[in-house]
Formats: sequence, C-alpha cells, structure tokens
Amino acid sequence: MKYRIGLDISGGDFAPEQIFKGALLAKQEFHDDLILIGVKEEIEEQIHKHNLNLNDFTIIDAPEKIGMGESPASSVRKKKNSSISIGMNLLREKKIDAFVSCGNTGAAVCGATLQVGLMEGVERPGIALVIPTKKGISMIVDVGANIDPKPIHLFQYGIMASVYSHLALGKENPSIGLLNIGEEESKGPDYVRNVHKLFSEAGVNFIGNLEAKDIFSGKCDCIVCDGFVGNVALKVSEGVAETMGKFLLDEIKKGFIGKIGLLLIMNSLKRVKRLMDYAEYGGALLLGVDGIVIIGHGRSNAIAVKNAVKVAIHELKCNVNSEIKSNISKISQDPKIKEMLNDLSA
Amino acid sequence: MKYRIGLDISGGDFAPEQIFKGALLAKQEFHDDLILIGVKEEIEEQIHKHNLNLNDFTIIDAPEKIGMGESPASSVRKKKNSSISIGMNLLREKKIDAFVSCGNTGAAVCGATLQVGLMEGVERPGIALVIPTKKGISMIVDVGANIDPKPIHLFQYGIMASVYSHLALGKENPSIGLLNIGEEESKGPDYVRNVHKLFSEAGVNFIGNLEAKDIFSGKCDCIVCDGFVGNVALKVSEGVAETMGKFLLDEIKKGFIGKIGLLLIMNSLKRVKRLMDYAEYGGALLLGVDGIVIIGHGRSNAIAVKNAVKVAIHELKCNVNSEIKSNISKISQDPKIKEMLNDLSA
Repeated sequence: MKYRIGLDISGGDFAPEQIFKGALLAKQEFHDDLILIGVKEEIEEQIHKHNLNLNDFTIIDAPEKIGMGESPASSVRKKKNSSISIGMNLLREKKIDAFVSCGNTGAAVCGATLQVGLMEGVERPGIALVIPTKKGISMIVDVGANIDPKPIHLFQYGIMASVYSHLALGKENPSIGLLNIGEEESKGPDYVRNVHKLFSEAGVNFIGNLEAKDIFSGKCDCIVCDGFVGNVALKVSEGVAETMGKFLLDEIKKGFIGKIGLLLIMNSLKRVKRLMDYAEYGGALLLGVDGIVIIGHGRSNAIAVKNAVKVAIHELKCNVNSEIKSNISKISQDPKIKEMLNDLSA
Repeated sequence: MKYRIGLDISGGDFAPEQIFKGALLAKQEFHDDLILIGVKEEIEEQIHKHNLNLNDFTIIDAPEKIGMGESPASSVRKKKNSSISIGMNLLREKKIDAFVSCGNTGAAVCGATLQVGLMEGVERPGIALVIPTKKGISMIVDVGANIDPKPIHLFQYGIMASVYSHLALGKENPSIGLLNIGEEESKGPDYVRNVHKLFSEAGVNFIGNLEAKDIFSGKCDCIVCDGFVGNVALKVSEGVAETMGKFLLDEIKKGFIGKIGLLLIMNSLKRVKRLMDYAEYGGALLLGVDGIVIIGHGRSNAIAVKNAVKVAIHELKCNVNSEIKSNISKISQDPKIKEMLNDLSA
C-alpha cells in the first residue's frame, strides 16, 4: 500500500532548499506519494534547479508563510493559506495520510489541535522524541507542546508513548518513567506526585520516578515530563554535547601528539556526533492528534527531512494511532483511574 | 584573619572517609580553622587511621545521622543531634563562620532555613552552582531548593546571584538571564513571564530569556530558573556527558587505529572530564540564608570536599552576604518593583 505524505516545503530554517532536497531523497528511498505543500513558485524553482520534470511532483500551493518566531495561535488562525494550515486541513479531510513539517513547532501543535483535532478522550497533544541512550533508544514526551500540565496530560502521554514504543520501536512491555528530582515517591511538585499515583494504579509497566541523569542511560523506555521541563532537558543536552565537543577539540589541539590522536579518532568522533544528533532519528511525533503529524527540528537538513518522512511512513505501517485510541479509551473507563481523575479535578 | 569552617563529616555518599580526607587536604592548603562535625568515634577512628594527633583537630560530636534519602523537613526536626542540625545551630550562634555539608541536600536547605534563618526580605533560599561554559564560568540558580516557585523567588535569586558573580567571581556588571523555552518575552508559563517583567524593571543587567542550549555557552553570567527545572538541567548535563564519553570510547575501541588515537588523546580526555566535573568547582551556595552554607555534591570525593571548603573561605573573604543584604533591601524598596510585587500577590 502506498501512503500519501504531505511535506511542508516552507517550514524550517533551511527551507525551501533543504526540505526539497529531503523530498528528493525520500522519493528515491520510499515508494510512497509525496505531496509538496508550499509556495508554488518556490517549489517549481527548486524542481527546475535540479533539472527535474514538473509532472513528477504533486504540488499544493500554500502562498502564505509562518515565520519561525511568529505567535503560534494567531499565525495559524490568520494564515489560512500557510503550508501548516493547508497541510493540517488536508490531513483532517484524509486527503493525505500524514503531514511532516519542520516549521514553527508551536504553530504545528496549534494547527494540529484546532484543525485535525485530538483523539477522543485525549486532553492535550504532546511532542514525543526518540532519543539515543547508552542501551539503544528511548522516548521522551512532552518536549514542548504543553507548558501548563495537568496530571491527566502527563498520564496520557505515558500511555500513548508506551503504545508507540511497543508498536513502532519494537519494545516488549515498554517501561514508563516519570521525570522527577528524586526517585522517592514523595519527591517533586504536587502535580508530578499525582501523575505518579495515576501510573501506579494503571496496570502499566511503571518504574516510578526517573532522575534526569538517567534520561540518556536507557533505564526507561518512555520518559514522561511536562513540556517546559522536557524542552529544557533536550536543549541542555544539545548544549552540553556541543560544549564538550569544543572543550575536547581545544584540549587536543594544544599539543602535537594530541593532534595526531585527533586524526586517528576523527571517524569515531563523527559517528558519535551522528549518534547524538536527533536529526538522524527523524522528527518528533505529535502524540494525541487524530492523524499523523511529524515535527522536524527547525534546523533540519535534507537527511533529517528524509528521516522525518521515514518516521511518518513507519508510524502509518505500524498502525500506532488506532491502538493508542483503544488504549486511551480502555484506561479512561477503568473505575479506579476514573475516580482518581474525578478527585483531582474536584 | 582566620575563619572557622564547620565541616559535616557524616554527610555524603563517601562519608566519613572521603570527607575526612578532604578536611586533611583543606588543612594543608588553607590556614583557617576546621571544625569537624560528626560522630565522634568515627572521626577519631579516621584520625588514628591516618596516624595523626587527636589534639590537632577540633571535633564536635553529632551522634545522629541523616540518610541521603530521608525526608528533609522531618529529619532535621527530629534529629537535633545530627551533623546538619548541630552545624546550622553553630552557624546561627556565630560559633562558626560557614558550614559545609555534602549530606542530604533537602535537609541542609531545611536546616539552614529553619535554624540559621533567611536574610531580611528574602523569601526563599536558592541553591546556586558555578558551572563551566565555553567562555569561562557562569552561575545557575536554583538547582533544587525550591520546586514551588513564585516570581519574587526567582527575581531575588537573580539579584543575589549577580552580587555573588560580581564579588566572588569577579564579573563586571554580571548579566542575568531567565531560563525559558524561547527567547521571546511572550514565551513560557505565567510565573516565568512575570519574572521577566520584574527583571526588566529592576535596573539590572537583564538580557531576557535564555534557552537551555545556552546554559553552557557562556552567553549569560547568572542563569535563573526554578528548582525543578534547574535540577533537571543539571542532572541531564551530567548524564549527557557520561553517555557521550561512553559512546566515544565504544566507537574508538572498535578499531586498532582508534585505540592508538585514544592513547594519544587520553590526557586531553581527562582534562575535559575535569572541566565538566562540578566537583572541581567546589560546592553549591545556598543563597539567601543569613550565614554561609555550602552544599557539596553527594558523591563528593576528598578533592571536592576541599574545594567546597575553599568556596566557603572565598565567599567569606569577598563579604558577599552583606552586599546581598543591602541589594535585596534596596530593590525591595524600589516603588516600581514594590507595586509589581503587590499586583502579583493580589
């Protein structure tokens, strides 16, 4: 079966050039249909530049652009002809099977929530990211969609992530951990302690609180946190990796022997860099939306774009969303969980 | 002038052995008086083990112990004869000039707040840490004292940190940045946006919001955040550094050439490890307490303990606390700030 993947050509720091190149890589590698959504003239210009045939591409004109720094809610509401608005509408109307954007993350979250809508029972969407760890890969959710978290949001993030982790990442009975400032149940702010109680009752593979030093240790398959904390955790890790790299180069370059050593380990350094580079793992997933939305990093290059398309296709193949829906519905009918949620909202 | 530094011999993962060794290093390097607070028999045993003379040490017996995982508030309240309780009381009674503990951080924060007390006008203490950056060093506050932050807490953290940064770290007109998920003023949760407003009006060198990727870039001298976020940021960075190190070793060891390269860069790697190791920078400061309290990392070894003592002596020499008091008092009398704080608490 061929999937129809909508790709936002206007979104991202290196749009349209790198996004278009990513589309070409995806066309080579996958046999699914790519629908290019963006400013028509710009897409055509890219096609001509690469000496390709216009007829080989499906283009949907989206003449308006949402800048990377624009206010999410108002940009989506006002710019009906932006690639994000048009892409989300196509997804709602089931004219595409998934939408991939490396544009303004907030706008993509708003657009998905307002135009595509959330799955029944889901209260807030969460951005989930697959990350490299000492033992392989894990997921962290939310990394920036929701900065006003209620216990039910984080609880649902964990449920959704564990379905994805099982179906799309192949983990048997994936473990869920709650990011907190200590491992003891009594640690953390009230809302986090309430999430702890919900997971403890939910009959899932909950391993309790997880300290931030263990995010990259592979101790846990699905790490749950609020969007502010998750965003900080993620961006700190980018910053540390960069700073460490710089320190290492500075130190090595101080001496002649070090320089030779550097030459000998250069390939290893490059592989580590790639291992730590989220772009290699494709985009982030917008969990909870009633349709498949992949959000690429703003700095995505062509390879990252191709990988984001790959993630979308893989998610479709694994039929993740229908299983998430059935899990969310099942768990929200659990009498104990229902009672706890009622108490929390009282 | 000789200072009297109280050292908690019972606190820390490697107590009493490593703490005592740290005390010996500190005795060698500094000319100030060390007061060893802990279980008398254990301290005496260490002294004998090192073939030293009992008369060369000042020991204060603190027979009770607070475990690293114990509940902070209740342990401090119940264990009056613990090293933390006794140390904080000595500090309040001005029988010591500073207290250094690598024990239960929460207990130290509680003990300091309840027994030593806060400076006039300060609402909550904050844990401040000096961190390595691409351009030298910066400070981050709070990294775990306060997980229920109000705007005034974060505002005061910034004011206090900038005084420390100026007097103790020698920065001219230190810059203050607010950790947030984007640089725009409109970003983040309500309480963070309110902190932004307070700093903007306070006549300090406020550079606005700072993204977490810039914590280690050296873009800002004093980074302000709540304790939950700060704790996560810090522990993530430890985890990333460790994971990157492991990835690099794994990759390098795959080939013969890499192994030779590794030998040649080993010294550089060690130096980077030291550069990224907070222990090298001594302990964290408990800002806002009316006395000097230094909190060492739980995993502190002898060198980290010695460095924590060094930080205490340096803070005393720089007379940081009296300047913090006068700054807090000045700024809380500023009519604009007063009005904003009234509006916020209304």
